[in-house]
Amino acid sequence: MISEGTIIAKATGAGSSAISLFRLSGDEAIEIVSRCFQAKSKKKLIDQNCHTVHLGTLHRDGIPVDEVLVSIFKAPHSYTGENVVEISCHGSNYIQEEILRVFIEHGAKHAQAGEFTLRAFLNKKMDLSQAEAVADLIVSESKAAHDLALNQMRGGYRQEIALLRQKLLDFASLITLELDFADEEVSFADRTALKKLLQEIKSKIKSLLDSFQYGSVIKNGVPVAIVGKPNAGKSSLLNVLLNEERAIVSDIPGTTRDTIEDTLTLSGIEFRFIDTAGLRNTTDKIEALGVAKTKEKVDNAKVIIYLFDPNDTSLPEIKIAINELEREGLIIILVENKIDLIEGNGFSPLVQSLNDSNNEIPYDALCSISTFEFDTLEKLKKILLEKVNSISTKGDIVVSNARHFEALQNALNTILNINAGLDSELTVDLLSVDINEALEFLGEISGEITNDELLGNIFSKFCIGK
Amino acid sequence: MISEGTIIAKATGAGSSAISLFRLSGDEAIEIVSRCFQAKSKKKLIDQNCHTVHLGTLHRDGIPVDEVLVSIFKAPHSYTGENVVEISCHGSNYIQEEILRVFIEHGAKHAQAGEFTLRAFLNKKMDLSQAEAVADLIVSESKAAHDLALNQMRGGYRQEIALLRQKLLDFASLITLELDFADEEVSFADRTALKKLLQEIKSKIKSLLDSFQYGSVIKNGVPVAIVGKPNAGKSSLLNVLLNEERAIVSDIPGTTRDTIEDTLTLSGIEFRFIDTAGLRNTTDKIEALGVAKTKEKVDNAKVIIYLFDPNDTSLPEIKIAINELEREGLIIILVENKIDLIEGNGFSPLVQSLNDSNNEIPYDALCSISTFEFDTLEKLKKILLEKVNSISTKGDIVVSNARHFEALQNALNTILNINAGLDSELTVDLLSVDINEALEFLGEISGEITNDELLGNIFSKFCIGK
Repeated sequence: MISEGTIIAKATGAGSSAISLFRLSGDEAIEIVSRCFQAKSKKKLIDQNCHTVHLGTLHRDGIPVDEVLVSIFKAPHSYTGENVVEISCHGSNYIQEEILRVFIEHGAKHAQAGEFTLRAFLNKKMDLSQAEAVADLIVSESKAAHDLALNQMRGGYRQEIALLRQKLLDFASLITLELDFADEEVSFADRTALKKLLQEIKSKIKSLLDSFQYGSVIKNGVPVAIVGKPNAGKSSLLNVLLNEERAIVSDIPGTTRDTIEDTLTLSGIEFRFIDTAGLRNTTDKIEALGVAKTKEKVDNAKVIIYLFDPNDTSLPEIKIAINELEREGLIIILVENKIDLIEGNGFSPLVQSLNDSNNEIPYDALCSISTFEFDTLEKLKKILLEKVNSISTKGDIVVSNARHFEALQNALNTILNINAGLDSELTVDLLSVDINEALEFLGEISGEITNDELLGNIFSKFCIGK
Repeated sequence: MISEGTIIAKATGAGSSAISLFRLSGDEAIEIVSRCFQAKSKKKLIDQNCHTVHLGTLHRDGIPVDEVLVSIFKAPHSYTGENVVEISCHGSNYIQEEILRVFIEHGAKHAQAGEFTLRAFLNKKMDLSQAEAVADLIVSESKAAHDLALNQMRGGYRQEIALLRQKLLDFASLITLELDFADEEVSFADRTALKKLLQEIKSKIKSLLDSFQYGSVIKNGVPVAIVGKPNAGKSSLLNVLLNEERAIVSDIPGTTRDTIEDTLTLSGIEFRFIDTAGLRNTTDKIEALGVAKTKEKVDNAKVIIYLFDPNDTSLPEIKIAINELEREGLIIILVENKIDLIEGNGFSPLVQSLNDSNNEIPYDALCSISTFEFDTLEKLKKILLEKVNSISTKGDIVVSNARHFEALQNALNTILNINAGLDSELTVDLLSVDINEALEFLGEISGEITNDELLGNIFSKFCIGK
């Protein structure tokens, strides 16, 4: 995993563009660039100050490739902590290929996915949770996901964990000391203080673990399924919700989104809509496969919008459908559609029965809409947001990384073991094993404890150039 | 066309990526960035040296948006000649949108297509032909096209034109002087010297005009049509030619090509293959439209590869087909296919008849191939390259820009008029009109003579961010 030498990669987006940016990192980075770069100024590149930019011509075999800007960053004052050179060139595909070729010829090698950030981690420019946040930051599509990633990149809960871990480490030292004097039955570690610390760690971890449910949906978007009988108006609702958003997005020049059709961002939180249009009983084998896939997605939804036409739906029908869907942690919103067709106060008798608390239908919210009435849709959006925000714990520290969640879960189990061990007056050597295990799990988050496989897993998910 | 204020645009490719680059240009560029940028160092951005890079945090409404690198270029030492700031950020779509928003809020405005380069032209950082070369450079996909564009960006034939224009301008002054003394019938301008200069300009322009045929195909790729009877093996030939190239391209990590299917680059020259598979007589109306379109493309091809199976083709058939295709400037290559099926010396009697100079079939080259025999395909490629390179004029100065071609053509016509005028002893005032016209056409190339419409035409073809 830990590679030597000077690496190079393109850091900017695919295809041709006004400008492309290449980055080299490694001991030889500045020298390698010097070999094919003719600056306008006479001074040698290696003698230039850190954080300076230089205009000149890049050559391959003496033939000019492009006029480029070269930025110099000298170790350790760079992203990776190594010597770094950034080259900004005209973004034609031909020039991009030539630039990679010429630097490979002069001794650089292609960077692996995430290798720049891996080097930054190895050179202690950031810890592992910050490095992971860099990858999250690049793919974040909503304000909420962005804020989570940026907060984690800037430190996040790392310091709190580190502090608790340090305290536990101090106890571990005392326990180890007891091991050395095992024959003499002395106890250096104050058991009451240790128990207090364990309680502190446990409560911190629990609140972090609780935040993951929220952090995970924020990071990946909230999966929402609109279900209901045929003709309830599912597609129309999806279309009006999404079309509006599209208009907003296309308002900003120079930006494109990959999968605009299925996501909607409300107050910075991304909602991912699952198309359930094909959800019906079928005898066709291939169609059945598609239905099974959709059902699986509905099973993984965080929010169900159950849409119904009050003129075409009975209370028992809703009851059966909702009871079938209900599971722990699922937010169920009942939505009466087509209220523009209802005369009078705009509430159908069905809604009145649903409002009756004795109907035994478990739902979280109930509202009435018409896809032609803007304010009713706004109400639905507001409910959607409120219900999702209600998952959030009070603290502003949120775990969104599944690996951290796992490490915290493991740490919590070990802490519970230590506690039980203390209660049952476990021998010092066995206690020590448990404490070391807890230290290891907590250390995994920031990368104080790590191994090649873990690093490989994390950084292989990065894009090349980061 | 000439806009005021500070502009901003994204300069790097679309979509999310490790890094994105934004560029601001204008009097206020550094100040606008200062307002939302918190540098790690205490020194104010405006007090930093030119060509320096600064790490810090970008804020919107006091909330951190990203950790960014900011590069400072102070007028006139920048691409545009104005104050320029480049911001390199993490390349998520969300951050990109936020960065545009925050700078627009602080007084910058979206740059028009090509506006950075337009400002560079208006601030005399480059002439018009160099500005045009920037756009050509970004879209150039082959070595030959790239070299043409880079050469033009670095000066090209601009200086030669400027020199000739200056000499003509000197004569124009003398002629104008004669106009002032019209009553006295003096002649300040030496007619013999003027005629010599006109001759010089004429010959220079002619050689530049001649080079355009080559420059144009190099810039846009050489259009090649593989035609022939059904079952001649057109698709197989196209596939073997293109597949090989694909393998080479995908060898270079981090690069993608848009339309790989139809182009092949040989020794740095791009060949664009036209799919003629659908070229047959048809009664279907919609199919007929497609056929008409393909026929139009074949009519615009620079090279025709006429492919035939010697066991399924007669000499008269080839004669009819070639006579139908023949036109001036077209390169016709006759290619015998499936020679792996021929016994003996590998040449069919048909090829022997074609070699006979009395057959009255006008072609430029004849070769025999098998799509299973690598070396026969290499021979075909060699012929393709040789024939295209033979269009090239001796000089290494090549016109590839259609606008320049038109201006040169107009200048040439005017020069011929002046010459004729001199011969017929035209009055000084009429002569003066012609000379001024010639000066204007020559001045259009470098942009010494220009107007808003012309600039609008040129820069609207640029991408945003350049």
